[in-house]
Amino acid sequence: MIGDDIHQLAKILWPINRSITGDGVRKTLHILKNFHTNLEIYEIPSGKKVFDWIVPKEWNVKEAWVEGPDGKRILDFANNNLHLMGYSIPVNATFELEELDKHLFSLSNQPNAIPYVTSYYTERWGFCITHNQRKKLKPGKYKVHINSTLQSGSLTYGELIIPGESSKEIFLSTYVCHPSMANNELSGPTVTIYLAKWLESLKNRRFTYRIIFVPETIGSITYLSQHYKHLKEHVVAGFNITCVGDNRNYSYLPSRDGNTLSDQVANHILKWTDKNFKTYTWNDRGSDERQYCAPGIDLPIASIMRTKFAEYSEYHTSLDNLENVVTPEGLKGGYSALRHALEAFENNCYPEVTVLGEPHLSKRGLYHTIGTKVRDKYVGLMMNLITYSDGKTSLLTIAEKCNVPIWDLYSILNTLSAHKLVNKHDSLIMDNSIRHLNLKVSN
Amino acid sequence: MIGDDIHQLAKILWPINRSITGDGVRKTLHILKNFHTNLEIYEIPSGKKVFDWIVPKEWNVKEAWVEGPDGKRILDFANNNLHLMGYSIPVNATFELEELDKHLFSLSNQPNAIPYVTSYYTERWGFCITHNQRKKLKPGKYKVHINSTLQSGSLTYGELIIPGESSKEIFLSTYVCHPSMANNELSGPTVTIYLAKWLESLKNRRFTYRIIFVPETIGSITYLSQHYKHLKEHVVAGFNITCVGDNRNYSYLPSRDGNTLSDQVANHILKWTDKNFKTYTWNDRGSDERQYCAPGIDLPIASIMRTKFAEYSEYHTSLDNLENVVTPEGLKGGYSALRHALEAFENNCYPEVTVLGEPHLSKRGLYHTIGTKVRDKYVGLMMNLITYSDGKTSLLTIAEKCNVPIWDLYSILNTLSAHKLVNKHDSLIMDNSIRHLNLKVSN
Amino acid sequence: MIGDDIHQLAKILWPINRSITGDGVRKTLHILKNFHTNLEIYEIPSGKKVFDWIVPKEWNVKEAWVEGPDGKRILDFANNNLHLMGYSIPVNATFELEELDKHLFSLSNQPNAIPYVTSYYTERWGFCITHNQRKKLKPGKYKVHINSTLQSGSLTYGELIIPGESSKEIFLSTYVCHPSMANNELSGPTVTIYLAKWLESLKNRRFTYRIIFVPETIGSITYLSQHYKHLKEHVVAGFNITCVGDNRNYSYLPSRDGNTLSDQVANHILKWTDKNFKTYTWNDRGSDERQYCAPGIDLPIASIMRTKFAEYSEYHTSLDNLENVVTPEGLKGGYSALRHALEAFENNCYPEVTVLGEPHLSKRGLYHTIGTKVRDKYVGLMMNLITYSDGKTSLLTIAEKCNVPIWDLYSILNTLSAHKLVNKHDSLIMDNSIRHLNLKVSN
Repeated sequence: MIGDDIHQLAKILWPINRSITGDGVRKTLHILKNFHTNLEIYEIPSGKKVFDWIVPKEWNVKEAWVEGPDGKRILDFANNNLHLMGYSIPVNATFELEELDKHLFSLSNQPNAIPYVTSYYTERWGFCITHNQRKKLKPGKYKVHINSTLQSGSLTYGELIIPGESSKEIFLSTYVCHPSMANNELSGPTVTIYLAKWLESLKNRRFTYRIIFVPETIGSITYLSQHYKHLKEHVVAGFNITCVGDNRNYSYLPSRDGNTLSDQVANHILKWTDKNFKTYTWNDRGSDERQYCAPGIDLPIASIMRTKFAEYSEYHTSLDNLENVVTPEGLKGGYSALRHALEAFENNCYPEVTVLGEPHLSKRGLYHTIGTKVRDKYVGLMMNLITYSDGKTSLLTIAEKCNVPIWDLYSILNTLSAHKLVNKHDSLIMDNSIRHLNLKVSN
Repeated sequence: MIGDDIHQLAKILWPINRSITGDGVRKTLHILKNFHTNLEIYEIPSGKKVFDWIVPKEWNVKEAWVEGPDGKRILDFANNNLHLMGYSIPVNATFELEELDKHLFSLSNQPNAIPYVTSYYTERWGFCITHNQRKKLKPGKYKVHINSTLQSGSLTYGELIIPGESSKEIFLSTYVCHPSMANNELSGPTVTIYLAKWLESLKNRRFTYRIIFVPETIGSITYLSQHYKHLKEHVVAGFNITCVGDNRNYSYLPSRDGNTLSDQVANHILKWTDKNFKTYTWNDRGSDERQYCAPGIDLPIASIMRTKFAEYSEYHTSLDNLENVVTPEGLKGGYSALRHALEAFENNCYPEVTVLGEPHLSKRGLYHTIGTKVRDKYVGLMMNLITYSDGKTSLLTIAEKCNVPIWDLYSILNTLSAHKLVNKHDSLIMDNSIRHLNLKVSN
Repeated sequence: MIGDDIHQLAKILWPINRSITGDGVRKTLHILKNFHTNLEIYEIPSGKKVFDWIVPKEWNVKEAWVEGPDGKRILDFANNNLHLMGYSIPVNATFELEELDKHLFSLSNQPNAIPYVTSYYTERWGFCITHNQRKKLKPGKYKVHINSTLQSGSLTYGELIIPGESSKEIFLSTYVCHPSMANNELSGPTVTIYLAKWLESLKNRRFTYRIIFVPETIGSITYLSQHYKHLKEHVVAGFNITCVGDNRNYSYLPSRDGNTLSDQVANHILKWTDKNFKTYTWNDRGSDERQYCAPGIDLPIASIMRTKFAEYSEYHTSLDNLENVVTPEGLKGGYSALRHALEAFENNCYPEVTVLGEPHLSKRGLYHTIGTKVRDKYVGLMMNLITYSDGKTSLLTIAEKCNVPIWDLYSILNTLSAHKLVNKHDSLIMDNSIRHLNLKVSN
């Protein structure tokens, strides 16, 4: 099962200490590159100005631990990379408990969880610890050892272009900057690389697919600062892929616009995947959609998720793992919803019937030849597809009007097209302004 | 009562064997022509190409029956024309029950009903029978005799033009192709011909009325293939008239557009006729609106019905009769709702007040001269009509804003017009694009 | 407390006999002028044509009473000016009870209330009386004395202009034509004059404020007939101020358009003042908004009220007083809601972020430097304000999107503006058509 394959890959990536820069990102990207040799890995030097930001120093960790008054290691980065606050500076000193405590982070309401804490842009050091362990610490001298480097280097990201018939693009973005956490990290890049595998396997692709693996926030800002003009001209739809691995909910977070093709497709696919899917608002954003939909950028990027970041208790703690949170079944559901969405982009068009009045279907063997009071469901759907095929209504909107998932229409449309009764107008591959107009018209 | 007159006419038309072609249609149209000598009857030859279709051969029946093993007639077209499948080819032969049975049609869930079955475009023969009778048939030899003709001839339809001040048209269509059935056939042409009588009796008509009596589907396609350019230029509103004879429900089926003047008027009239009227969607269509609203035709045609076709158990069976289903009361209600709708077309306009600020009504005797805390309802309605008379809002929309039926405003508008306080702008009689724009603006 | 100050002023104005013309209006306006020496008082001569109306004769009263058969005064204008029907002509005669009774007005369902009755445009006389007193009147001769004058004079109104940076105007109108009644009269001019005091105290004003005190209906029509072209060019928003003094409800009456800036602000402010505020429709109008929003005038004038005229039992009777109906608390609430609305006009703008992507807030000290799972509410609101600052969305709409009152955004916007992260575009001060366009776009 696809879910097992994805879960297996996540396990391989699990122990790596990722952050917004450093060797953890590089190692993760090289493992992903095994799936696609076309995945290009880029390095952007520290200090480079990217929009309002500056690419930070590169951070790497060799070892990090704390020894207690009795000489035993009480915290060790080697056991769980969450123990070390992200971007901790080097330290090699001994502290009284009172002083050490100022550098400890725990969650009183989740006493068994190690929290995930970072300090990217202010130099600090710290350790993260379960609240239960913290409460047991005894007064005395603690030896703190952090063998890390924080120095000029580079920010690393991956980019994979899968070409299609058109230069118009579907844009997928996922992030690779969190240490060992499952739903809010590993589900994203693992599902995305499997989607890329499937895309590559297709005989025909209408669209070119641009898929990036970046550190969150600074990575997407860096990528945008290099490519946003190209993206604004070419991208017709896309998703930020995160939190697609647990088997609890399906969720939708809109683009800032709220009504782009990505939003329409996400809503449609989720409605037919799980009628109880959760709808968030733009106010609930929190990942790279913040950059892709920022004023002036305004890309048509929405999010299809399982349980959304910040909406589950394990989020940003050591409890967000590959056993209790992210499962093969959960990953399969996330992969499947996103694949349905990409298929919808590929199949969407503006069908236009070629005859005036209803076509005479029975002479083509497409209609029952005996008239009675009984109605055939398949024929009814074909008749509905025909009546809405006015060249101005997208297949997606037609599916909504027919109250069926868009995938129920693919084969019927192909049958009608084969009989030259309906032309598929590929209006999506038009310039953006007209496309946008058409989308508005079609609703 | 008008309902009795219409019911009486339906009884006269009841026994005629109508189909999509043949003498039954001609005979029906000649009876209707007694009401309007201007009703013109047209014949379109078999074989003529009409859009994607071809006018079929003409079908006529002299007699048709089945004799049982004992020599008794078990089924006879002379008793009920539903017994013979529509468009049955000639047969004169004897069959074992097993073979005959392949040509029999009955309804197991309505064992006392003779179903209505046709096979217009594939040559067949068949008999329709109650399920109870069918179950009792004994093995043996059955003599089948169908004296029918299926040969080159013509398709017949009627057209009645009632001229008005404007060349802009209201288009009414009804069908004459079903044998002895009441709500889903006879209610349509009988109510329509009485509406035509009433229209002819009016001293003034703003609009020209185009009223056609056609066989369903092939008839409307034939008519459209000859006239659709004229219709697209001239028709501002209209209805397909069917199922207007039972006294159970009021129903509305929208045009494909869903918001034409016909839709707006239908909704308004029905809301004030029966607040529980049923609203269907375009997916529920099934009569000639399928052709009138097809992509590229796009006429503003909606349907005002009593109980909609396919939504009542007697539909398309011998149970759809003039005793239990269609009644004088039911026909009166259908006639009345449609007449209200036509009156709304005639009276709708874009009123525009002629003074700035509120007019001084009391000096014209239109307002109470003593100011107190009591409000007069009629005066209040007059004030509302004035305040909404901005020249951009239709009388129909004003009625909606005032929460009254449009007919409550006719006399008030005439009073204000007589005092030269309001001009009635007849914006409907403009070119279609502007009219459409105004309709949008006014909502 | 501001409510006490306003209530005190209302008490001073209480006993004056106001009508649509006469010395009562003049006296009222001169008292208000004490608060603003810039309040200009205008006199428009009787007989002047104003739109469809004519300025009526001026009415003044010296004394008016009725003596009973026993020579005792049973009704005296000196006790309560409501006893005399407004615009009563002079009378000095004796009548039998039967004849007198034709000139009496009382309310059988409010037997302790003196009703408020007028006859401005038909010459009459009459007295208003409690129903309880009327029932006790005994047969006999009644002496009626009305020492009034109804003769050529003028209609009086006040106008106060408070200049601002722009020539674009906020228009406030209130009326001064009712005798001793509290919510439906005195709350209006007293709250308005205190709003004017506050406006004058502001260091900067974006808008010019045009504030008028007029007799209802004939006064607003007179004012419009003189100024409507100027108003249509300059007024961007405003309110008709009435019924702002009781402490029971908050109410909103829309402009005829229903979606002007005034409507948007009124709805927003009331929602955050009292989530149970009442929304009326344009059909419920009844004060000078009838003129300001008449077709062809179309000013963007809505109403923010406490309990709306005609919606409380004391309305238009002697029971609408400064003890049981209008209170300091009630007046404070009306004043406060309107002041919030005027502040919203002053602060509304179209913010536009100056950087692409999210700004790096932490380097400016505007963001926490440690990343964890906890969210800061103030920082979240700042991020929301930034993300919606696309230069096309008004601050008002942004507040709606953030689900906070607009006043929560003023200081955050100023902080961001001080850091040059957001420009405030003052798009309101554009020509009307573009402004209107922007308002539509922003919703």
